Amino acid sequence: MWHYEPPLDDMRFIIEEVLDAPGSWSQCPDFSEVDAATAREVLEQAGRFAAQVLAPTNASGDLHGCRLENGEVRTPPGYREAYRVFVEGGWPALACDADDGGQGLPKLLDAALYEMLLSANHAWSMYPGLLHGAYRTLKGHAAPELRERYLPRIVNGEWLAAMALTEPQAGSDLGLVRTSAHPQDDGTLRVHGTKIFISGGDHDLTENLVHLVLCRLPDAPAGTRGLSLALVPKHLPDGTRNAMRCEGLERKMGIHGSATCVMHYDGATGWLIGEPNRGLAAMFLMMNAARLHVGLQGLGHAEMASQNAARYARERLQMRAARRPDGMPPAPADPIAWHPAMRRTLLGLTALSQGLRIIAYWCAMQLDEADHHQDQARREQAARFAALLTPVVKAFLTHHGFHGASAALQVWGGYGYVHEYGIEQCVRDARIAMIYEGTNEIQAIDLVMRKTIGDGGAGLNELLDALARDIGPCATDPDLSLHATAFERHCDAARNTIVKLMGSPNDDPEWPLRVADDFLMGIGYTLLAWAWARLALAARNSHGAASARRLESARFGAEWLLPDGERFWQRAANRDARLPAAPD
Amino acid sequence: MWHYEPPLDDMRFIIEEVLDAPGSWSQCPDFSEVDAATAREVLEQAGRFAAQVLAPTNASGDLHGCRLENGEVRTPPGYREAYRVFVEGGWPALACDADDGGQGLPKLLDAALYEMLLSANHAWSMYPGLLHGAYRTLKGHAAPELRERYLPRIVNGEWLAAMALTEPQAGSDLGLVRTSAHPQDDGTLRVHGTKIFISGGDHDLTENLVHLVLCRLPDAPAGTRGLSLALVPKHLPDGTRNAMRCEGLERKMGIHGSATCVMHYDGATGWLIGEPNRGLAAMFLMMNAARLHVGLQGLGHAEMASQNAARYARERLQMRAARRPDGMPPAPADPIAWHPAMRRTLLGLTALSQGLRIIAYWCAMQLDEADHHQDQARREQAARFAALLTPVVKAFLTHHGFHGASAALQVWGGYGYVHEYGIEQCVRDARIAMIYEGTNEIQAIDLVMRKTIGDGGAGLNELLDALARDIGPCATDPDLSLHATAFERHCDAARNTIVKLMGSPNDDPEWPLRVADDFLMGIGYTLLAWAWARLALAARNSHGAASARRLESARFGAEWLLPDGERFWQRAANRDARLPAAPD
Repeated sequence: MWHYEPPLDDMRFIIEEVLDAPGSWSQCPDFSEVDAATAREVLEQAGRFAAQVLAPTNASGDLHGCRLENGEVRTPPGYREAYRVFVEGGWPALACDADDGGQGLPKLLDAALYEMLLSANHAWSMYPGLLHGAYRTLKGHAAPELRERYLPRIVNGEWLAAMALTEPQAGSDLGLVRTSAHPQDDGTLRVHGTKIFISGGDHDLTENLVHLVLCRLPDAPAGTRGLSLALVPKHLPDGTRNAMRCEGLERKMGIHGSATCVMHYDGATGWLIGEPNRGLAAMFLMMNAARLHVGLQGLGHAEMASQNAARYARERLQMRAARRPDGMPPAPADPIAWHPAMRRTLLGLTALSQGLRIIAYWCAMQLDEADHHQDQARREQAARFAALLTPVVKAFLTHHGFHGASAALQVWGGYGYVHEYGIEQCVRDARIAMIYEGTNEIQAIDLVMRKTIGDGGAGLNELLDALARDIGPCATDPDLSLHATAFERHCDAARNTIVKLMGSPNDDPEWPLRVADDFLMGIGYTLLAWAWARLALAARNSHGAASARRLESARFGAEWLLPDGERFWQRAANRDARLPAAPD
Repeated sequence: MWHYEPPLDDMRFIIEEVLDAPGSWSQCPDFSEVDAATAREVLEQAGRFAAQVLAPTNASGDLHGCRLENGEVRTPPGYREAYRVFVEGGWPALACDADDGGQGLPKLLDAALYEMLLSANHAWSMYPGLLHGAYRTLKGHAAPELRERYLPRIVNGEWLAAMALTEPQAGSDLGLVRTSAHPQDDGTLRVHGTKIFISGGDHDLTENLVHLVLCRLPDAPAGTRGLSLALVPKHLPDGTRNAMRCEGLERKMGIHGSATCVMHYDGATGWLIGEPNRGLAAMFLMMNAARLHVGLQGLGHAEMASQNAARYARERLQMRAARRPDGMPPAPADPIAWHPAMRRTLLGLTALSQGLRIIAYWCAMQLDEADHHQDQARREQAARFAALLTPVVKAFLTHHGFHGASAALQVWGGYGYVHEYGIEQCVRDARIAMIYEGTNEIQAIDLVMRKTIGDGGAGLNELLDALARDIGPCATDPDLSLHATAFERHCDAARNTIVKLMGSPNDDPEWPLRVADDFLMGIGYTLLAWAWARLALAARNSHGAASARRLESARFGAEWLLPDGERFWQRAANRDARLPAAPD
């Protein structure tokens, strides 16, 4: 039956053998005490929490959902208890700086922790999921007294945070935000407005919670240049309830255990974070952290779907297989895992989970090196890489989280459509990740317009160079040369498209926007080609059955899944394809 | 807000201009009184029922679901009333023969009727959805007294039918069915066993209902050759309740208004239909009818998602568009339908809905001609074409119904994830169609093993020849030659793969099964290329704004969507790709 086994061995292999994260930590003075043994210990404990405490609340949380009772949100049974254990384990503080009471561990380990939490229970994990982003935002932009008051209790998980951006008329277009903030004589703000889709806008996991609210000061310019950021707590420092309330919960396709609140601020007291009209910049760190977090949701779903489908397929007997293991006695029906159509699905899910994990963890390593590497040039390069990778990780991983879960559902046949088998919830939960924190289409526009055309393609070409160098040894190894060939195909297509993007704005200004989604998906497949090549290189240098399986998995990905990526480059190459007006 | 507008103009154009169905009817003596005007009148009335009576019950049916009360299933509010109107309108009898009290209209019109019903309310439409298949099965195989007792009341919709095949251990593998049937001295059977996933196994729409139960007679051979078919009614002819009951309803991802029953037969009285041990053959007609019906679910969802997304995108204002209509005054935000990413999605959904409709309706026309054409050679060819098209229509259309609905959901952004906007239910409902009536993987095996390799590829090559002839005029028209080129690419790939499939069993018996899914999808895209070519040809011969839009839509399909199909042929061409054992 549906359950979670933390893939510790795969995680360890990727962290140590594929990405050599310990080698990276040794070049980051802040991580001088972190080594492979620390990482293993942390992940084992995190895995225990995810599998034993959190996973059992997932299916029941979906059925119960959240309730709004007397204006207060009640989370599903077991959510509060799981959160208490989470806080007692010190997990909220994992990647917060030691100066602030955190454990000062790399973001890579925080990413691995969240992959496990999200596999075990996506909805629950959204409550603490914004904690680290809020921590960075407050630390980077809040005034000292605000930091003193809120940071320590966010770091230790006593209080949680919510991001309040969206309004009914302002979704992807935050420039349309209307929530107002009026400065008072005592230095506070009075916040008026309605926000929607506020995840964890109210809940009963913590006594207090802190909203980071995008709003407009009086006489602010129109559009995004007039947005400010306010900290608005549920309870004020004197203990009184702030003038804000949850007015409703959305009835959603999935993540029923996560409270998606309509929030009304009726003259709520708040404090400015950062400069007036620079709210988006102040929120930038939080949004980027949230985007990696959402990408990890895709990975978590792909992994969960993959391991459960594999288990089910080994046990479910239907029909005789065309190819049966040698010496197996005849039986009326064989495990469906032996049937080619199911084997393809299962092998695809395994290869995808491994590949997506390598991409996500490598992105987290860039964030770590951007903040902590001893070499300034590497720090700057890592920041450039992280900026490029973030939209791809968000969109590409969530795409595959949803589609991978849906592919896995097919393994269960009719049972897959029934709640008690788990996978249908996985599909429903996974779907939201393609939407929030900037829809996948918005990520594509960010990648193409700001991060590729914005610097003439220099950063992306630099990233492609680094990827190519990484997997150089594949070319000279006959068993791995297929990976070199597959990567080159995608890499060449990417470089050609970058040239076209740069040439385009003059004669056809809309063209980059037309192919933005293809471009992001193409870059995603280029990263997958690289990830499978790195997996194969690392497995080649190891021994045993696990290494043989990893080599097979990487090869399967290159042979069977990379063909799915070429259509994106094919479309991007067709400059003549017309895009007429939308249908009536 | 979410609602249904029957696409009567598109349906009319496809029936009359693209497929020239009236020309086909004129060659079928049984349809001598059917013409374009009849068809328009029928579809207008059907559209009125779907939009005004049925669609309003869809969202509430999802929220209420079915209830099991004192062993009886209660359908959601409004379902019974809608069914009464349906029966009063004579809709159950639409395509049943006039001799049996039916209207004797073509299956094409029945398909168009069901497309509309399924767009309006998929869950409700499943209750009458099996009616026609049950009618054909009884008519073709039941003894005269059974036919007399049950046929008239099924034709007029007074009673409904359910197909009882699946058991917990027997899903795709019906050879594992254990339900037993013991002949009695009075000529009846006593049926014992448990069936699961029985859609409409019990409900309150009709007084009585009739189960067609796959079962085993005593001493029947193992496997599918020992299966018999029994008719088991809920109420016996003397009015007593039969020994069968619904023991539970599944809690499902979607189609909540459709009762998915666990049925227990505890010595229920039944009658044999057809020969002993020939149950699968007797059920064959019903299963084939059900597969076209399920394919229409995919079409219905794609159409519903498409038209609602287009309406929403015209009204929702976010951000300024890069290209705005000439002379449009500046505004803070433009309709998202003007943004390239959304235009791509909307144009894709429109092109897909049109293309899938052409394929489905053409398949229905083959069924009509197979039964009714005056020329025997055409009848036989139509039967061959219908046999080939059925698995493709089932799998390819349901694939695009689900993925199309999910693509559309993205247009709503966060609202798309919320129940009241309608699209998330559409995604959930659409997912089941890829599973039931033979999973899409089973359809692919049927297409490759039985219907392609089974006759040496002769039938499929004949079909491809017919498709190529149909669109011949595209090649010589400069504006349409892109359609000829696109179709040829797919058609050549299909023919090459057929050659490989025929060569394969000797050296690598598993290979056809490995690429079966790719083959089916590739054939589906070949049909789409043909469908858009036919749409373009017909639009080229018409005038006005609608024709221009159809030409654009066909061109968009060929340029932007057909590249999605080539990867299937690419994979099928790679005979060397290994498929290792499933992961542990």
